[in-house]
Formats: sequence, structure tokens, C-alpha cells
Amino acid sequence: SHDPYMRGRMNEGKSYAQPQPLGEVMIGGTVGEVVGSRNASFAVGDKVVGMGGWQAYSVVDANVPGMLRRVDTTHVPLSHYLGAVGMPGVTAWYGLVKIINPKAGETVVVSAATGAVGSAFGALAKARGCRVVGIAGGPEKCRYLVEELGCDRAIDYKADDVEAELAKIEGGINAYFDNVGGKTLDTILPLMNDFGRIPVCGMIANYNHQTEPYLLRFDQILMRRLTITGFFIPDFLDRCASYLPKLRQWMEEGKLVVRFDETKGLEHTLDAYARMLSGRNIGKVIVDIR
Amino acid sequence: SHDPYMRGRMNEGKSYAQPQPLGEVMIGGTVGEVVGSRNASFAVGDKVVGMGGWQAYSVVDANVPGMLRRVDTTHVPLSHYLGAVGMPGVTAWYGLVKIINPKAGETVVVSAATGAVGSAFGALAKARGCRVVGIAGGPEKCRYLVEELGCDRAIDYKADDVEAELAKIEGGINAYFDNVGGKTLDTILPLMNDFGRIPVCGMIANYNHQTEPYLLRFDQILMRRLTITGFFIPDFLDRCASYLPKLRQWMEEGKLVVRFDETKGLEHTLDAYARMLSGRNIGKVIVDIR
Repeated sequence: SHDPYMRGRMNEGKSYAQPQPLGEVMIGGTVGEVVGSRNASFAVGDKVVGMGGWQAYSVVDANVPGMLRRVDTTHVPLSHYLGAVGMPGVTAWYGLVKIINPKAGETVVVSAATGAVGSAFGALAKARGCRVVGIAGGPEKCRYLVEELGCDRAIDYKADDVEAELAKIEGGINAYFDNVGGKTLDTILPLMNDFGRIPVCGMIANYNHQTEPYLLRFDQILMRRLTITGFFIPDFLDRCASYLPKLRQWMEEGKLVVRFDETKGLEHTLDAYARMLSGRNIGKVIVDIR
Repeated sequence: SHDPYMRGRMNEGKSYAQPQPLGEVMIGGTVGEVVGSRNASFAVGDKVVGMGGWQAYSVVDANVPGMLRRVDTTHVPLSHYLGAVGMPGVTAWYGLVKIINPKAGETVVVSAATGAVGSAFGALAKARGCRVVGIAGGPEKCRYLVEELGCDRAIDYKADDVEAELAKIEGGINAYFDNVGGKTLDTILPLMNDFGRIPVCGMIANYNHQTEPYLLRFDQILMRRLTITGFFIPDFLDRCASYLPKLRQWMEEGKLVVRFDETKGLEHTLDAYARMLSGRNIGKVIVDIR
């Protein structure tokens, strides 16, 4: 699994996670198959989710809580446990249900809308009866948003005047699910309705440019009485397990149809990761290292 | 009553309140005495709270809900209904109880700590068992914070290195009640503990300089999973009435001892207002126009 949070670990300094030590296997979520077991709870052939890192095989102590989880692939393909029924799906669900808690008919905007979290968010928000506006880069992504994910509207930040397009939204914006930080957040702040909610789960635009002078329109948090909440799913891992069956059910019912961006070969891992950070992926980025 | 929110009304453009029209009486909260009445519910001599504006006399229709409220001055002097048992007190209470909701022993920081809202906040937070650190400008204000309001620590932003002083706080900062915006907020963001709460009820530092490039450290909202909430008490006026008896009781019990900064004479109103915006007041700013 490739996820933007990993970029934060590539910096030194205090973050919500420990920095990645140099010279050790890069951490990362994985799905795979048990090829050998000395633990009675796991058999060869079991499909499992864990944190195996960027390597072909990993050895773990499955007795450590949270280390390895067997999953059912009867109705849900294994790779989705890294996406819409995994951490990205839970992230979208938490931001939508626990932070935004939208009424049906409210308008939510999501950035990086074709990414793993953004696409799950869009699908879930539609299932909750919201009007969904997705922001993404390029016509192909925008078509995907409207035609496959069912978004009511797509804004192409590479071609459109984002501010003008957002300003056209009838009834205004009730919530913004922020995956990117930076200029997009600054643009949207004055366009929010009063009492708007802004869950922030990523700042991909800022990971490589930490000194960019952004949030010039922060005064809007007071003018519009907004609530901005930073969150990070591993804080709630104990509760996440209870959300997953719901996500799995929605996927089985066809409400959570999301794409993958798959690269084959461990040797292409870094290219795939850089592609994601520069937004060239559509959907959840995974590397198949079989 | 002089309050920072009035400064916002002196700008054009959308805000949480309508701009003050030129050529009309400046709006503002007032306490006073009924000198004439054609309403059976109010008698000459009654002490009342209303929105009389910057003028010596006002005529109001007391049947309009929220227009005029008779208050009891047996134990609480009339002027306090503009301060700790009025809108500033309710603002402090709401931020403390409804947004921060601190556990006893948690550390809260408050800026503009000697102002009407800040001083009420400090006193209320102490009464809830918090450790309170106040930020204010100058040794006299800092003495007031520690010796009269009972703050555990005062930081003089004119003399101290605010960042270094905040960084010394043992156990870190659990909440920051933000009255000022600007650089202080930016300084404090990286020093917040995880899951910190930041109610924002004023941005006095930004009212006159709206293009200052601030919030460079907004990434911290994600790194520390902070929640920042802008709020404005008139949104909750219906609920405020239920908070006031509690504030009045605390004042009667001596837990809410706050100072006034009083100017005499309507002709000095503008000077008094400018003094407040530049932070030369200690306590709630009122003008006595009798």
C-alpha cells in the first residue's frame, strides 16, 4: 500500500509518527498470503493484512495484537483491504460520519477526490445523501468522479478557476474534506457556509514545501464559525474494527466502487510512490510484488 | 460596552455581522436605567441591559424579544452585566466548557488574558481546576494575572520570548483560548499537545492587517490532531440565558473577580476604543456617559 502519510515519515522532526529510520525496510501496509506458519491461528494460504513494509516477505509475531489480521476474500478482493475497506476507507468514513456528520442534502467538497481516501469519501457521502463536489487534476479524473463515483460535480484544478467554480455551488458549501492543505484550503475558507466542518486528514500539497506562506484567509474560521479538525486514523484503531463490516457491506452492495492504480514489481515502488505524490494516480495506489 | 467585535463592523464586506452603517449611531451593548416607560413590564428606575449604542439615551420597543432585560443589582454591580456576567463572561464560559471541556489539571493558555473575555476565562478555568497560563503585554498586566486573577503563570509578550516561555510549560499545552489570532496562534500551534482544542473567539491582531501572511504552521493541526473552532456568542443567545445564573453565582462567591477599565464621558469614547484595540486596557472597557 502506498499512502501519503509515509511522506511525513521521510522528514526528520516530531510528527504524528516516528520518522522512518534510514537503512531499514520502509514501513507500509500490506496484504498477502501466509506461506509458512508456526502459529496455530494462521494456516498456509490464509489471506492476511498487516504492516509488512516494502519487501517481498515478512516475518511477524502474530500473537502481538494488531500485527496480522486474516480477512475474508469471498466477496471482497484482497487488495480492497488496503483501500476502501482498509485504512483509507475508515479515514473517509470517520471524517464523514464522526466529524462532518452531514444532514442529507448538505453539500460536501472533497479534494484529491480520486485518491484512495477521496474516492471512498465521495462514494460514502453519496450513500449518505450528500451533494458531492470533487476536486481533481485533469479531465480523465474528472470524468471518473462524475461517471463512475457518482459525484454531482467535478472541478479540474488544472483547467478550471477553482475559486469561481466553488463559488457557483448553489446553497454554498457545508463541509470540506481536506486531503491536500495549501492553496485549496485557503481558497475554500471564504466560500464555506456558517458552521462549516473541515476534517483535515492530509496536506499532500505541503509535504514538500513546508515554508509556503499559506492560510492567508484563516480569519474566515471566525467569520463563518468553522471547525477544523486534524485527525489520523491510527489514533482510533481500536474503534476502526467496528467500522469495517459496514464498509465491506457497502462494497458488496456496490456503493463503494473505487479504482486501483496498480504497479507491478518491487523495483518500481519508488516510481509509483512519486507518481502518487505528484497526483498522477487515479484511485488507490498499490504495488504488486508477487 | 466596548468590544473587539465592533472593529469587524467597521469594515465593509461579509462578516459574521452586518457592517455598521455610516451616519448612524454606533451599535454596542449598554447597561442603564429606565428614565421613562410606556411598557407595563418596565418601571422608571429599573436597571436594564440592552443594545443602546454609543449615545446617552435610547428608545426601544421592549416587547421585541432580546431588546431589553431587567437585571438584579443587589449582589452584582450593574456594569458587570457588560463583562463577566454578560457577553464576555458567556463567551469565556462557552469556550471553556462547551469547546475545551477540560479535565482538571489540564493546562490552558489564554491570550489577551487581561481583557474582558480573557480575564473571565482565566477565572473560570481556575475554578474548573485547570492550570492557567495567561499571555498579556507589560509587567502590570502580568502582575494582575498572577496576583489578582490567580493564573499560574503570566507571559509578557512585550518582554519575554513567548515561544521559549510556552515551550517551558511542563506537561505541554492542552488547550489555547485564542482572542488574538496572528503570530501568537502560529507560535503556539507546534507547542500544543496531541488532541489540543483551540476555540477562536477573536483575532484582534488581524483586524487592522488583513493581509499579513500568517498561520505558517497550520500543518500542526494535522501533526497534533488539533481542533480549531471559531465561535460567536450571538449564535447561541437562546442558550446563553441559562449560563448567566451560574456566572452570577460564581461572581457572588468571589470566583469571578475581574477589573474594569472605565472612561468617563461620551466625548472620550473613540479614544477608549482605540486604547482597547492597541491593548492599553486592563479588564473590561466601559465608558460611563452619565
